[in-house]
Amino acid sequence: MKPRRKSSAASAPARSVGRGPASALTRSVGRAAEAGLRAARVRLVVLDVDGVLTDGRLYMSAGGEALKVFDVRDGHGVRLLREAGLGVALLSSRASAIVERRASELDIDTVLQGERDKLAALERLLAASGVAAAECAYMGDDWPDLPVMARVGFAAAVGDAALEVRRAAHWIAQADGGRGAVRALAEYVLRCRQRHPGQLGV
Amino acid sequence: MKPRRKSSAASAPARSVGRGPASALTRSVGRAAEAGLRAARVRLVVLDVDGVLTDGRLYMSAGGEALKVFDVRDGHGVRLLREAGLGVALLSSRASAIVERRASELDIDTVLQGERDKLAALERLLAASGVAAAECAYMGDDWPDLPVMARVGFAAAVGDAALEVRRAAHWIAQADGGRGAVRALAEYVLRCRQRHPGQLGV
Amino acid sequence: MKPRRKSSAASAPARSVGRGPASALTRSVGRAAEAGLRAARVRLVVLDVDGVLTDGRLYMSAGGEALKVFDVRDGHGVRLLREAGLGVALLSSRASAIVERRASELDIDTVLQGERDKLAALERLLAASGVAAAECAYMGDDWPDLPVMARVGFAAAVGDAALEVRRAAHWIAQADGGRGAVRALAEYVLRCRQRHPGQLGV
Amino acid sequence: MKPRRKSSAASAPARSVGRGPASALTRSVGRAAEAGLRAARVRLVVLDVDGVLTDGRLYMSAGGEALKVFDVRDGHGVRLLREAGLGVALLSSRASAIVERRASELDIDTVLQGERDKLAALERLLAASGVAAAECAYMGDDWPDLPVMARVGFAAAVGDAALEVRRAAHWIAQADGGRGAVRALAEYVLRCRQRHPGQLGV
Repeated sequence: MKPRRKSSAASAPARSVGRGPASALTRSVGRAAEAGLRAARVRLVVLDVDGVLTDGRLYMSAGGEALKVFDVRDGHGVRLLREAGLGVALLSSRASAIVERRASELDIDTVLQGERDKLAALERLLAASGVAAAECAYMGDDWPDLPVMARVGFAAAVGDAALEVRRAAHWIAQADGGRGAVRALAEYVLRCRQRHPGQLGV
Repeated sequence: MKPRRKSSAASAPARSVGRGPASALTRSVGRAAEAGLRAARVRLVVLDVDGVLTDGRLYMSAGGEALKVFDVRDGHGVRLLREAGLGVALLSSRASAIVERRASELDIDTVLQGERDKLAALERLLAASGVAAAECAYMGDDWPDLPVMARVGFAAAVGDAALEVRRAAHWIAQADGGRGAVRALAEYVLRCRQRHPGQLGV
Repeated sequence: MKPRRKSSAASAPARSVGRGPASALTRSVGRAAEAGLRAARVRLVVLDVDGVLTDGRLYMSAGGEALKVFDVRDGHGVRLLREAGLGVALLSSRASAIVERRASELDIDTVLQGERDKLAALERLLAASGVAAAECAYMGDDWPDLPVMARVGFAAAVGDAALEVRRAAHWIAQADGGRGAVRALAEYVLRCRQRHPGQLGV
Repeated sequence: MKPRRKSSAASAPARSVGRGPASALTRSVGRAAEAGLRAARVRLVVLDVDGVLTDGRLYMSAGGEALKVFDVRDGHGVRLLREAGLGVALLSSRASAIVERRASELDIDTVLQGERDKLAALERLLAASGVAAAECAYMGDDWPDLPVMARVGFAAAVGDAALEVRRAAHWIAQADGGRGAVRALAEYVLRCRQRHPGQLGV
């Protein structure tokens, strides 16, 4: 639960498609290229909240959850995505008025909370927004995120995600949840879109 | 007090029974096997609160303890145990309404607080629940947990527990208290129960 | 986003002016000397808030930002600067009553908040205070700080600043934002002023 | 400001008296022995608050300091000292009702707050309590603690204290402030008293 898997690069591609007789290096390059192409198609970024936009800590008072702790750099990442014209949505199995507040600060209009079945919620979101699954990115940190990650075109994991989540990701942020992972995702997606403009609208 | 003992594996067996002329490797394998068999028998998981479900920080205002900080991954671990039909109880020498609140969120019905004599409280709990000590797991982090750990069938320690507590444990989580130690415990117990179904009900 | 660049020294000069045929060592010495001379001229220290005086975490309740977390050592650094007769100002793109409160504790009278265009705010500050840009230090952590850092005489970065910010800095604190970076800056500026008294008033 | 000096042992003696032609090892052994003898005489333990009983973070709301974050292990350390019959006092240059609250939880009856001149406050405390300076321990983290550390018989520093404070200490905790440093101090003092009972009352 505390992997602290830190590669020297800021991020690492994590899932391959082709598994032919290629060398390890070729496979690694292939995975990076694949992750970049997948990221270049993204029009909508969907984010888990606890463990992704926060570090997973729940600040409880006797009256319930009193605080959530976000990161100013992650907020800047969301703004970069919005300024580039991408959609951003939050999808959480817990529910908190704090999330609505933070979403409004960051100009995020779609907030899905209290969704025990995250995949069903994603399907509704895609249908309502007219975005194809291949154009959707999702960043998660734990097991309940796995079905959604298997569905979207670009699946990302925070640096300290559960092992199974990092294995299921096309791309893993070096930064941990609540400490810049979303910012890193935003920079990566925007860089890939600039590099591969032909992917847009595919 | 800040051991940060990190093995490469996610956890480590920590106490041996047989101390014959075996090699270090054999002893280590024996300890791991013993920890697994002990974990496989568990029907009730008892958890210390401060330092186990939290990282031991006490958030104080002028009016007293204002917040406790839990981890969303530990909460998921408790839910996995509950879904598998195991009992979960909290046992703390401090007392806080925050703990009641978190317990209710996690479907934990047994909360023993303000118990200076933790062993006596455990004995009452075992008597009331009809669970044998051999079927009980306990996770602790500091000296007051030692008598309870010596009593239960499966004694677990958080990664940053006091040296004496790590020595007294059958199993030590790689994760620290309040940062996934309880989640790791839940995964370990459930995995051992699947591997050694013959232990159940022993 | 989580560089944790830690040199063995408490700080590191980070930008050179002369780029002739000097050896790497000469260049490094030259950079350190240049940073020291720039710091020696400082009469006014301007600080970003989130990520510099804090570690960038935003503690949100349903009613908005509830807490900011400062460091007692950074407060001591600000006091050292004030006692030496230097001006200290805060410059933030966010706005919070908490910042006013902390500034008043630290005897900081100039607080510029809600400034989306930080460079314009700096120009107003310099004009109002009669301090030349060459006599002004600024410490930042992220991209919006870059225009200001290019303008002032002495640009400093926190240890965990974004890569581009560390590249743009004359000097990088070993300590991270909200964990002693401002204190390190204060000690460095005061030490340089003592070493190079001839720079004062230049 | 973020030294993270971690020796393999739980603590390290840090100041020598004799500086003759001894080898480094002899000197090191001599320092450890001296620290132990000094600790064995302690009847009163005086603790700084911010940076010692806390990690130095100041949780500010718009209304002022809202929270202080203590460590459950440090609280246990204070209780061990009290149960052994030692006095414990808090000495802080800041002032907060939160400190009174925590002190009352821990059965600490002497709390000196808002003391800009810590040495003068210590002298008053010693005079009032009838404890000799040689029987007094003090644990600090930053420059304002230096005069007090030079006065008492046993001067201790938290693991992440300022360089000058670590240099001035007879003993340095491996643990950082607010994360077990006081607990480590308590264990060390009590162990030394058991080893050198002849020192008591000297």
